[in-house]
Amino acid sequence: MTAPTSAPRRIVVVGGVAGGMSAAARARRLDEQARIVVLEQSDYVSFASCGLPYHLSDEIERRDDLLLHTPATLGAALNLDVRTGHRVLSIDRDARALTVETAQGSYREPYDALVLAPGAVGVRPPIAGLDHPAVHTLRTIPDVDGLRAVVEGLLDRRDPADAPHAVVVGAGFIGLEAVEALAHRGLQVHLVELADHVLPPLDAELAPLLSDELAAHGVDLHLGVSAASVGTGDTGAAEVTLSDGVRLPADLVVVNVGVRPASQLAADAGLDLGPTGAIRVDGDQRTSDPHVWAVGDAVEVHHAVTGATGPVPLAGPANRQGRRAADSICGHRTTPQAPVLGTAIVRVFGLTAAITGANQATLRREGIPHEVVHVHTAHHAGYFPGAEQMHLVATFAPDGTLLGAQGVGRDGIDKRIDVLATSIRAGFTADDLAELELAYAPPYGSAKDAVNMLGFVAQNALDGTMPQWQAWDLDDALATTLVLDVRSEKEFAGGHVPGALNIPHTDLRGRLDEVRAAAAGRPVSVHCASGVRSYLATRILRGSGLDARNLSGGWLTLVAAQPSLGTS
Amino acid sequence: MTAPTSAPRRIVVVGGVAGGMSAAARARRLDEQARIVVLEQSDYVSFASCGLPYHLSDEIERRDDLLLHTPATLGAALNLDVRTGHRVLSIDRDARALTVETAQGSYREPYDALVLAPGAVGVRPPIAGLDHPAVHTLRTIPDVDGLRAVVEGLLDRRDPADAPHAVVVGAGFIGLEAVEALAHRGLQVHLVELADHVLPPLDAELAPLLSDELAAHGVDLHLGVSAASVGTGDTGAAEVTLSDGVRLPADLVVVNVGVRPASQLAADAGLDLGPTGAIRVDGDQRTSDPHVWAVGDAVEVHHAVTGATGPVPLAGPANRQGRRAADSICGHRTTPQAPVLGTAIVRVFGLTAAITGANQATLRREGIPHEVVHVHTAHHAGYFPGAEQMHLVATFAPDGTLLGAQGVGRDGIDKRIDVLATSIRAGFTADDLAELELAYAPPYGSAKDAVNMLGFVAQNALDGTMPQWQAWDLDDALATTLVLDVRSEKEFAGGHVPGALNIPHTDLRGRLDEVRAAAAGRPVSVHCASGVRSYLATRILRGSGLDARNLSGGWLTLVAAQPSLGTS
Repeated sequence: MTAPTSAPRRIVVVGGVAGGMSAAARARRLDEQARIVVLEQSDYVSFASCGLPYHLSDEIERRDDLLLHTPATLGAALNLDVRTGHRVLSIDRDARALTVETAQGSYREPYDALVLAPGAVGVRPPIAGLDHPAVHTLRTIPDVDGLRAVVEGLLDRRDPADAPHAVVVGAGFIGLEAVEALAHRGLQVHLVELADHVLPPLDAELAPLLSDELAAHGVDLHLGVSAASVGTGDTGAAEVTLSDGVRLPADLVVVNVGVRPASQLAADAGLDLGPTGAIRVDGDQRTSDPHVWAVGDAVEVHHAVTGATGPVPLAGPANRQGRRAADSICGHRTTPQAPVLGTAIVRVFGLTAAITGANQATLRREGIPHEVVHVHTAHHAGYFPGAEQMHLVATFAPDGTLLGAQGVGRDGIDKRIDVLATSIRAGFTADDLAELELAYAPPYGSAKDAVNMLGFVAQNALDGTMPQWQAWDLDDALATTLVLDVRSEKEFAGGHVPGALNIPHTDLRGRLDEVRAAAAGRPVSVHCASGVRSYLATRILRGSGLDARNLSGGWLTLVAAQPSLGTS
Repeated sequence: MTAPTSAPRRIVVVGGVAGGMSAAARARRLDEQARIVVLEQSDYVSFASCGLPYHLSDEIERRDDLLLHTPATLGAALNLDVRTGHRVLSIDRDARALTVETAQGSYREPYDALVLAPGAVGVRPPIAGLDHPAVHTLRTIPDVDGLRAVVEGLLDRRDPADAPHAVVVGAGFIGLEAVEALAHRGLQVHLVELADHVLPPLDAELAPLLSDELAAHGVDLHLGVSAASVGTGDTGAAEVTLSDGVRLPADLVVVNVGVRPASQLAADAGLDLGPTGAIRVDGDQRTSDPHVWAVGDAVEVHHAVTGATGPVPLAGPANRQGRRAADSICGHRTTPQAPVLGTAIVRVFGLTAAITGANQATLRREGIPHEVVHVHTAHHAGYFPGAEQMHLVATFAPDGTLLGAQGVGRDGIDKRIDVLATSIRAGFTADDLAELELAYAPPYGSAKDAVNMLGFVAQNALDGTMPQWQAWDLDDALATTLVLDVRSEKEFAGGHVPGALNIPHTDLRGRLDEVRAAAAGRPVSVHCASGVRSYLATRILRGSGLDARNLSGGWLTLVAAQPSLGTS
């Protein structure tokens, strides 16, 4: 397998960050004799792309900590010929050679096997004045160097009465990390997002938790609007004008509105692209040319739940794709590329938000039938000090198969999303989640972990034991059913659905006649704070011949989905 | 399903803690009309058994926080007839009635369906003087009440120059929690364990991490010895004499050496027991009598990996068994009982130790072929502040199936063990672990998570890319191979295997002739600190025609398995 045949194999990798460098390193480990060249157009390879916001925030103080490897260390450890500042202009597939441009001129580089790992490029939104010097983005080492210099300059000159202002356009993962970093540095941050909630991939009823956290840390939110233009205001400083006419002072503008595959080189070479512009590859990462492989943000993957194809700009899949391409090139056993779940996570001040699998918007758009389950449960035993409430949502197919999961909370979210991502990959159903045997001691979890609870609730919802209604059904519930609030009288007094009947769940058995009279033959839509007491009430009512259903996630989800209720 | 037929169903549950109360609560939710009686011999139901050590430590300050429910709250919410201080003397299976003893005398209680949830009883070890008043155990609310009173009395009378002494017999999960609690309270704790390492279910090479942590917190460890007797010493205080003759002062002795099923009532009634004395049940928790179900610590379960049968005293499985028994009784759809993984976790001061699936001792004892993989990796991105090293071990069948996993570390262990427990349940292989898509951002994980790394290493070990040697093969490696240490010269100087050749991995390609000369035709047993650099070195050597193999876990595992090396 690794023994030399005749001439050493010539492997050329274009792009020296996550996927490309994984391919190069794995190739060397599999073939000691190969000649392996990595061509990187920037001055940096193997940098910690995901760490950039934390260098901006100064949590990662040393810039060198972001540079995981250098051409010198990669040469010493792996005998890789890593060339930075080398841009590939074209691929001559017939001759198996690249035309490479450097500061010293261009040259041809031959290959036996070519790995394309060009990554992604930032989407340039239609904002007038986007070339204004105050506008930055946050994707590369030079980007973060520039941003740090600007931030430090602003702080040096700061008016004690007025913090410098930063406008962040785009409330996706990197946008939120940039917001946190800039606020941490002491800037007044304005966040602009075209969607109606922050972190658009997050389900709408979880997003208000993030908005509240952002607001609590002084971030000024502008949702459902776009940045129309960047210009210079009356004071001489920059300003951003939003689509609703609002003008925001902007000593600094950070634009991160998503990325698209950097597939131009592949397209120019005539390699097949998918409809999203990503490079099409087979299960071994091989492109339409048998001598060319492609990995990372620029390639098309299959989504595990929907089967949809498109690029996914995530480091984990990129690294594994690089490994797989090298296995294929070196004739090593390859494992088929697993469909991508899109598992992702972000810290937003004290909160964590994480997602895996399909979100509700995608399921609705694709017409995939699903049951939605919400639980609000403690991240470890409630009786142990420091228990933090987690907000979890999961979706299940009618046959019980887990389709997606999301969570927001102060602790324990990453663990649950990892278990749920593993469960989706396994094809698990609600029954399987109910039976999962997770590690329990009071400092770590609960005997019935939140993941088990998602399974229990989904079982009950799907088998008819506990039909559900959802927060977004409230208007319909008020129009056609009795809304029954089984919280305590004190909780009810603190805010409730107008028109709801309040009977605490422990009184319900003695007050069934009241419910019957108020329902007058209509179904009963029960809720409590989180869905637990109302589950008991739903069962009491159904066991007494009434057509009752339980609000998934209770008042906590209702208020998130219908914010006006919280102030009623 | 829940509609009343004729007379309400009479369900009697014996034992009102985890499994029993889960059965009673679920039965009520499924059958509003049933008459449900819970008979509990102690004065407490639904108490947080796993929280007892943390009330002893005073982390859980309020005793009431351990009492999750009372007969009154259970009556109000679930219409359960909960009777504490009620001991069941016998089961008349023909008449379907129990004889119940109370302080007021005995009576007969009829049932249609009976659920036995008697739990476990502490094993009474063969220690002379075990009835000495200084001897306690830690399994019940009265136990913790008594222990707190003793500890507080000792602290009130304490000599400032000499802390009170506690001897803890048994270094299992609860024993370690008791040690931590008593040390936290300021007692000088002596820990006695018959096995040769603390936490006997833990693999031997991980246990030294716990021993070091215990010693760092002033705990006096006595391993490989038993407590022979408890008596009153010369000073008038108690003392424990060990099997090696050592005498330990003991103002307090806590004995927790395991439990056995409390199956006497079931045995007396002629129900089938397994060879371990646990009650035999079918997939619906039904015993050999079709009107009797059993759940919790007293029942026999199947182990997921070995197929062995026996009891497993864990809260999670108990709760799910209770739910299943109720489903079966009420004619609800039941899900088959999943085989038990034995997932468990314990906090030992600043460390966490957790296990799932089969441990190495079990696999060896059962003759199950397996490959052992060790990784020592950061719990989140190494470049992000606060990264803590995790020590993980996993075992794989020759076909790659994951059989078991364990971990010790300061952070992130619970998450990885939960993902690995889920993976065992899914029947995942090393290939599947390599492909798992877990949530990555720098504060939470790594693009190649520790779980992925276990998969990568196992793939390489199992497909011959990187044959392994193990720490316990050291003597053989020294006798029959060249031991090659590829760490830096500075690391080598800080401690190494006597007789090892040191060539830093980055110098290896230029010094292959030295290796060939020293190996003299023998295989080369490579190691570094954790196994990463030596993997690269192993590949260089194998790619150069040498028969090289890599030490799993490197020097870190070697020193744990062969403690004398650490002082060489």
